[in-house]
This record gives sequence, C-alpha cells and structure tokens, in this order.
Amino acid sequence: MINRLAVIGVGLIGASLALALKQAAVVGHVVGCGRSEKNLQKGIELGVIDSYTTSIAEAVKAADVVMLAVPLGAMQMAFEQIADSVGEHTIITDAGSAKGSVVKIAQTVLGNKISQFVPGHPIAGAEKSGVEAGLAGLYQNRRVILTPIESTDPEAVGKIVDMWQQCGAIIEYLDIEHHDKVLAATSHLPHMLAYALVNYLSNLNDHDEIFKYAAGGFRDFTRIASSDPVMWRDVCISNGDALEAFIEGFKAELDEVSQAIRIRDSDRLLELFSTAKSERDTLIGNC
Amino acid sequence: MINRLAVIGVGLIGASLALALKQAAVVGHVVGCGRSEKNLQKGIELGVIDSYTTSIAEAVKAADVVMLAVPLGAMQMAFEQIADSVGEHTIITDAGSAKGSVVKIAQTVLGNKISQFVPGHPIAGAEKSGVEAGLAGLYQNRRVILTPIESTDPEAVGKIVDMWQQCGAIIEYLDIEHHDKVLAATSHLPHMLAYALVNYLSNLNDHDEIFKYAAGGFRDFTRIASSDPVMWRDVCISNGDALEAFIEGFKAELDEVSQAIRIRDSDRLLELFSTAKSERDTLIGNC
Repeated sequence: MINRLAVIGVGLIGASLALALKQAAVVGHVVGCGRSEKNLQKGIELGVIDSYTTSIAEAVKAADVVMLAVPLGAMQMAFEQIADSVGEHTIITDAGSAKGSVVKIAQTVLGNKISQFVPGHPIAGAEKSGVEAGLAGLYQNRRVILTPIESTDPEAVGKIVDMWQQCGAIIEYLDIEHHDKVLAATSHLPHMLAYALVNYLSNLNDHDEIFKYAAGGFRDFTRIASSDPVMWRDVCISNGDALEAFIEGFKAELDEVSQAIRIRDSDRLLELFSTAKSERDTLIGNC
Repeated sequence: MINRLAVIGVGLIGASLALALKQAAVVGHVVGCGRSEKNLQKGIELGVIDSYTTSIAEAVKAADVVMLAVPLGAMQMAFEQIADSVGEHTIITDAGSAKGSVVKIAQTVLGNKISQFVPGHPIAGAEKSGVEAGLAGLYQNRRVILTPIESTDPEAVGKIVDMWQQCGAIIEYLDIEHHDKVLAATSHLPHMLAYALVNYLSNLNDHDEIFKYAAGGFRDFTRIASSDPVMWRDVCISNGDALEAFIEGFKAELDEVSQAIRIRDSDRLLELFSTAKSERDTLIGNC
C-alpha cells in the first residue's frame, strides 16, 4: 500500500501508473506535479490524480513514493528540487529510458539520499502522449527493468517491486550499462530508423504521392516516428554513445544488403532474408 | 462476370482474389495452378479454388482472366508457358510488386499477345503467406495500381478494373517507372531496413537478451521482416536499381541523425524528430 504517491510528470507513463495502482486499490492519495496546469486539471477530471501542484518541493512532501516520469532532459532540475525537500522515508523512483545518465545525476544531486533512489524503466509506451493517453492496463505483463546500484536500499527496491507487480508488470534486473545497451538496440535504434525514413521520404519531390501509396506495412514500420520528439531528443543526448555505435553497426549490416543487391546476388539475398525471418519468428513470434 | 479465372500461384494474393470474387458472386469457376499439389489440395478444401492443375498451359486454357500471382522470379517461366497456350480472348494480369521487370518479360515473351496483358499491383499484403493466409476482405479499400502500356487493349484494362472493384479495391494508374520508384520508397526500402535490423541484432553476442526486452514498438517495426524471403529476394533482383538508390539516400539521412547525436545538437535533433512526427501524423494519420 502506498498512502501518498507523487507523480512528477503526468504523461502517458505517470498517468498509467496512477490509474493501475488505483484500479488495484493499493494507493491512497495521488498528487500530480507538472508545468502545465491545464494538463493537471485534466488529470483531476479523468480521475488520474487526486490533487496537483506545480511545485516539486510541494509534491514530494509527505509522499511515500515519488515517481519521476519526466523526459530525461528534465531529470537534473527535478532531482535538484527533490533533493532539497524530500523526507528520509520517501522512496524515489523513475521511468527514464536511459539509466546511466539518470543515475549519474541522482548520485551528484541527492548526496546521501541516494540510497532512497531506485532507478527503473518500464518497457511500455506508445506513440501517444499526455495524461489522456494513460491506460490502467499499460503495464500488464510488461517488463519493468530495475537497475539498483550498490548504495540503493534493498527495502526501497522491495517497495518499488511491489508497486510495479501490483500493476501487473514483470520485474527484471540489469546493470546500468547493460540496460542502456539493450535499449539502444531494441528501442532507440529503431526509433532513429523510423524518424530518418519518414524525413527521407518527406524530402523527396513527390512525397505526397509516395505517402499515398503507403500500405499497412509502412504504417506499422513508421508508427514509432509519431513518438514524442522531446522525449527522443533527450534519449539521444542521454544515451548518445551507445546509440551512435548501434547506428554505425546497423549501417554496416545495411551495406551487406545493398552490396548483395548491387551484384544481384540471389543466394546471399535469400540467405539474409531467410535468417532474419527465422530469427524474428522464433524470438518474437510471428505477430 | 468472369466465367473462368485461372490463378497462377495460389498464395496470399491469389487466394484472396479468388475468395473476394466468390464472395461478390462474380466468378464462375476458379482453377488454381502451382507447383505444390498439397497447397492446391488445401485450396480446394478451403473453397478458394474449384479445381487445380500443376500445368500452366492447362490452367489458362479457356480462362477469361489469368491472374499471375507468382514471385517475380517465376514470372519469366510463367509467361513462357502462358504465351504458348493462351487464347486470344483471355486477359492476363499480374500482381507483381515491381512492374518494369514484369512488363519487360511480357513484351519479350508474349509477342503480339502483349495487348492482352494488363500489368497490375495490389497494394495489400501481409507477412503471412500461403493459401491459408487468403482473406476475402484483403483488398477492401486498398489501392490497386495498374500500369498499362501503349499496346495494352483498353477493353482488357476495363475488365481488370471491374474485377478489382468487385473486390472493394480503389484503382489508380501510374507509369511503370513511377510505380517502381514509389514502391521502392514505401515498401521495398522499409523491408530492407527491417531485415537488416533483425539480422544486425541477431548477430550481437547477447541477442537472446536483446530480443527479450523488445517492446511493442519493436514488434511493429520488425513485423515486415517476417515476410516471405523468396518474394523479397525477387523484388531486390527486379527493382534493384531503384532500391539501391533509396538505400543510399536513406543512409545519408541517417547520417544526419548520427551527426546530430555525435555533437549532442539538441536543437537539430528536436527539429528532425518534430518534422518527422508532424509529417507522419499529417500524411498517414496518427495510427
């Protein structure tokens, strides 16, 4: 049971957490915090939060748990305000999709309150954003990766594990570097490819016609290019080294395809596509 | 009304056509033709076709319409067999996803029967294949691009337009070169990216773990990598020049992103992602 939950950043991730905990009846009062009063007001209307404030210091006061669900670029400012006002029994966690940069900020800013911080990342999301996008079932059967560090209080970890499990999530542990590498590969890289593809086609002369003939496969493939640009800018800044390496690696793999096309190497093309199909069907399921 | 339809290649595309025409009650007898008797037998059981033969010469005899729904790599052989046995009142059409190569084969092989050939391409598909994948509603509200040439009989075009409209499809006309360029951009290039991404990640040391943390976005993004490898090998061979140019263009666009990440250019990244999101939301809809 969480008596008082403070959600800093009431967007898709924060709103869905609040809704899931309310549905499970394991949270008392949810206080929302953000910059846009309009969004927070909407959160009240939708029953996502019970009260709100635009002051982080105010929000975290007397909270059992603070969920930081702001874009990575806002973490520094948020941690600074938390550090000054958070009580010693409050547990802080986050939902940032890169963990190295967040933990570094937390270590610098929180001082000895670092033990109260449980770094986390729910592997869930959508290309929709804002409080209206919140879904009580968003975390059902989804993985939440926790990346506690040596100084993290094990009891705090236990409390956050319990919170996510109440939302139906599956808990996994990874070290920070590994998390950032895995996410660069499966999430950050594909987003870059989708953004680049849409921009590339948009810049062609006959782009209206080109998009007109786009079929379902193209829609699926580029769906993630409708994701929040601010969030993804921040991911690039926070996890840039890992991401850049993966982009280079991907380009080399694409060159393999390109080279096989250039010399019309049927056997090689069939091999490349058969391997990919079989890997995807096996590892992800044919869905 | 089509009294006798010959479907050469009873896979997703051919089976769906037969089912749609049967549902609309505008086809008499459907004869299926292919190499696998097992698949054809399955087609009979599923009510997709009414009879079958493994001989193209046999299948096209007395047919009003012949639909060539074989992989692009099998077109040469199929046209050769059609040329020898097709009657002068039979209309031939195809569903190949590259049109330049198919029309070139048809012109070479059909001789003066070229007027009976209406080159076409339904913009519909799925990563599933085989007769079991056939869906009566596959072409509902989907575009079918026809690329008739100067020598194509306008009456033959009219008959094929009617056939597709009975399936619920929307007819469009493009010249061959334009078709192949548009398709390279919206379909062939994304498939190459998806295949390359899956292969790239599969070849990493910790690929099992990497796929384990793949979320919904990754599933959507790589769905097309589960497509039929033979079909895509043939597309690469048939539309290689256009495709290769698009791969190179895409790599240059990806370098824009990579460069912005390297120098941590926040403004540029935000601009790139905002433009892409807005283009996609506007042109495709936020879905």
